Amino acid sequence: MSEKIPIANSINYVHVEALNERTYKNLVPYTSDMKTTKTFLFAAIDMILRYITELNEHDSPVIKNGLRTPAEYRKMFTFEIDDQGSDLYDILANCERILETTVRSGHPRFINQLSQGVDTISLVGEMITSTINANMFTYEVAPVFNLMEESVLTHMRDCCGWPKQGPLSKNGDGVLAPGGALSNLYAVLAAKHYAFPQIKKGGIQNGLRPAMVISKHCHYSMKRAAAILSIGTDQVYEVDPDESGRVTAENIEEKILYCQSLGLTVFFVAITAGTTVFGAFDPIEEVSVICRKYNVWLHVDGAWGGSTLLSPKTKHLLQGIDKADSFTWNPHKLMSIHLQCSAILIRHLNVLQEANQMCAGYLFQPDKHYETSLDTGDKTIQCGRHVDILKLWLGWKARGHLGYAEHVEGLVENAKFFYEALLKREPYFRMVMKPPFINVCFWYVPSSLQHYDQTTLEYKQRLDKVAPKIKERMMNSGTMMIGYQRLDDYPNFFRAIISNPATTKGDIVAMIDTIHELGHDL
Amino acid sequence: MSEKIPIANSINYVHVEALNERTYKNLVPYTSDMKTTKTFLFAAIDMILRYITELNEHDSPVIKNGLRTPAEYRKMFTFEIDDQGSDLYDILANCERILETTVRSGHPRFINQLSQGVDTISLVGEMITSTINANMFTYEVAPVFNLMEESVLTHMRDCCGWPKQGPLSKNGDGVLAPGGALSNLYAVLAAKHYAFPQIKKGGIQNGLRPAMVISKHCHYSMKRAAAILSIGTDQVYEVDPDESGRVTAENIEEKILYCQSLGLTVFFVAITAGTTVFGAFDPIEEVSVICRKYNVWLHVDGAWGGSTLLSPKTKHLLQGIDKADSFTWNPHKLMSIHLQCSAILIRHLNVLQEANQMCAGYLFQPDKHYETSLDTGDKTIQCGRHVDILKLWLGWKARGHLGYAEHVEGLVENAKFFYEALLKREPYFRMVMKPPFINVCFWYVPSSLQHYDQTTLEYKQRLDKVAPKIKERMMNSGTMMIGYQRLDDYPNFFRAIISNPATTKGDIVAMIDTIHELGHDL
Repeated sequence: MSEKIPIANSINYVHVEALNERTYKNLVPYTSDMKTTKTFLFAAIDMILRYITELNEHDSPVIKNGLRTPAEYRKMFTFEIDDQGSDLYDILANCERILETTVRSGHPRFINQLSQGVDTISLVGEMITSTINANMFTYEVAPVFNLMEESVLTHMRDCCGWPKQGPLSKNGDGVLAPGGALSNLYAVLAAKHYAFPQIKKGGIQNGLRPAMVISKHCHYSMKRAAAILSIGTDQVYEVDPDESGRVTAENIEEKILYCQSLGLTVFFVAITAGTTVFGAFDPIEEVSVICRKYNVWLHVDGAWGGSTLLSPKTKHLLQGIDKADSFTWNPHKLMSIHLQCSAILIRHLNVLQEANQMCAGYLFQPDKHYETSLDTGDKTIQCGRHVDILKLWLGWKARGHLGYAEHVEGLVENAKFFYEALLKREPYFRMVMKPPFINVCFWYVPSSLQHYDQTTLEYKQRLDKVAPKIKERMMNSGTMMIGYQRLDDYPNFFRAIISNPATTKGDIVAMIDTIHELGHDL
Repeated sequence: MSEKIPIANSINYVHVEALNERTYKNLVPYTSDMKTTKTFLFAAIDMILRYITELNEHDSPVIKNGLRTPAEYRKMFTFEIDDQGSDLYDILANCERILETTVRSGHPRFINQLSQGVDTISLVGEMITSTINANMFTYEVAPVFNLMEESVLTHMRDCCGWPKQGPLSKNGDGVLAPGGALSNLYAVLAAKHYAFPQIKKGGIQNGLRPAMVISKHCHYSMKRAAAILSIGTDQVYEVDPDESGRVTAENIEEKILYCQSLGLTVFFVAITAGTTVFGAFDPIEEVSVICRKYNVWLHVDGAWGGSTLLSPKTKHLLQGIDKADSFTWNPHKLMSIHLQCSAILIRHLNVLQEANQMCAGYLFQPDKHYETSLDTGDKTIQCGRHVDILKLWLGWKARGHLGYAEHVEGLVENAKFFYEALLKREPYFRMVMKPPFINVCFWYVPSSLQHYDQTTLEYKQRLDKVAPKIKERMMNSGTMMIGYQRLDDYPNFFRAIISNPATTKGDIVAMIDTIHELGHDL
């Protein structure tokens, strides 16, 4: 760092200056003298508290001074490493600058993607997790975390209504994965092994041509799984959703039959509970009937919408989930848990293990003195695995079932308020559709475009440029953050997702005003 | 929790009792009153400090009261979730019990696997990371972290001596992945796309039979990658290492030719820099000549041994790494960074992006107002991606190049001391081999076996039972932890890996004594 960054100091018993000229050698595990370690940790907590306090000021910017260019950030930070290490004051000063310049995704007016706010319980969960620095691969090194994960996954599967099976009376299988894309990959891997167990050893041979049928609005990780598994994206057949963003069972069946007519073997159907952009819920029950008829694995990607199972008022959106073969559900989205925490749930007992196990002797010794079925490592595609369960378990314990039900209902209520507020602001704001869930999709239409015929190409082309321009101004000012994209034939539109419990109706109105302010002259 | 767990309170300005009957609703982001949030975070730090202080007592157990049965842990914790949430005192009391009962992998006498100690800088890095809760997928939501990752990966590639290429003068590509198994998977994915770009769309077709040649001592994730990619584990041809655990280039070539004679197309060779059990380093330079000759991608798995590049005294072990096409290197192993932090480095500029990109419009809008090449999300197989870079960058900044060189050299020195101490304890301790690196592999031979002919089957069968029995006693007493396994024709032997800078020569002697104590009567 070229200049010395001063660290603000709000806790008067933390003497940050004491860290000057102290180095990592004054910290645990290099010394057993706890003095510097204590000061260092308290100073970090002090910074974190200041950051969180600022987030509480709803009018404060989401990005202080706006998004900078790479060159500007490279000037602010010295990313390069020197021969000699920095002292601990410098290390903390870098942290302070990071907290100062970061995109504040926990801010109530960050609705670009995930937006859960700073979940204090997740934060404490991560602090304890990092302190223990355990590894999930075997029971012997992480007994409590493995039992905790098994218990929570069992509960999540209970929410799906899956039956108990086998000698251990388990309601299925699963694992926490580093994100929904990998959970979806797990689903395709399991389905592949279920349909074609010979591929694990033999590979794709003898003219076998596996195929997948998915909704066009499925998350892109479904298609990528086909690339990874060497099935090929050409063998992924997409079904067009209707204007509400949902596929129909008839269209799925049609596509399966079409694939069969081409000599392909459809082994996997994926639909979505809460699509990425629209937040639409595909009809699970109806599609499951078709999948059963053709003996095809049904995967439901509920990375986003799976948490609707948590409220009796919303769980009807997932009707039929008891018939799914696999289910992705990300607590790091709607349940406010910090990154990363994604569950892949599999209704079948042994397929995950059979598909992925390699029986590495140095980790999974067959002669251990405890039940080796408690070693989860051999059913994952990782080896070492981070403990993602603690923050989720603590968060769920703290809220209880009723707390999460209320949380989901509150977010739905906010989305309804957002939608109604936008309707009142016509013709500047135009809805893409009535929100099926929490996603609110809309265009901003500046005066200059309001008298155009909406069916013309010119209107669409001009409207397409509005959202990117507003976003650019937004990022430069840093006041708020919202995402936009094209979809199907729609020109660029905004997608607002409010899942931060700190976001108020006042914030919603303020955000609508900000968009208008930034876009009215376009 | 059935009974109330008391929380020890060592910081007199933290009033843990104030958390009684306070709930998550009294925390950010549910309230903007910071009072409870402050108390909660400080109480957590207090617990963490107590835990770390205990680790400093080298004679304290690695598992307090030893490893318990699942039933015992289930009694100690109420894993089930209730309708009503727990109060914050209960949440912390659960954390306290977790810290009390956990396997203390940061303990100086935990040498079962990764054993870096509690790295205070990693811990602070994780605290800041979780507070910001950023997502690596795009520049716009994590600008500083993306630039930081690019800078650190560039430096890691510089350590490999890879040349600058292309209009941006980059020395290759790469990404941080959730663990070495996934880094290795990335390598196979990249190599597959490099050799057979048609598979991404078309799948494995027309009788194409891709094959991989690996060392038999490669990490099991290499073979699993073949299962995931539908190449099939039968198409993974293993080369036997010599008695030092290293493959020869001649044997690799022989296997490539053998595959060709079967009509297979070898596209990938994997060797290891620091094998899992022995810590052996395959001869990269020699193997690279063969790979160039047959136009095959060379992957070096340096998950464990990659960090030898950090010292001028050890980097010769990786001679030839400048010719590798891809390289796995886990800072969460030898560099003491907390889980998870693994780098996959690729010498080629665009293959990662070309192999994995799906161009999802809602994340990777082509009309962004900044260079979209800074959006790393489309070259990964994740979507959301945890920030793993901050803890690594802070740790590296704090130590500097010289600090890490000293760290690596110190560990090698400790391993040498361990080896020599074991030699002095013959015939109770018998080496499997002279340690090529930090891994120290040995048998404990109780008196009852010392007069056996070592070449007999009975000796081997009896020796095979010794390590599991000692491990069982060790886990029940909780005094220390060390791993064991069979390998090739060797009966079960111990593998000690000391990578915790807190582990002293005194600890090493104490651990040798403990093994003797637990095993002498067998």
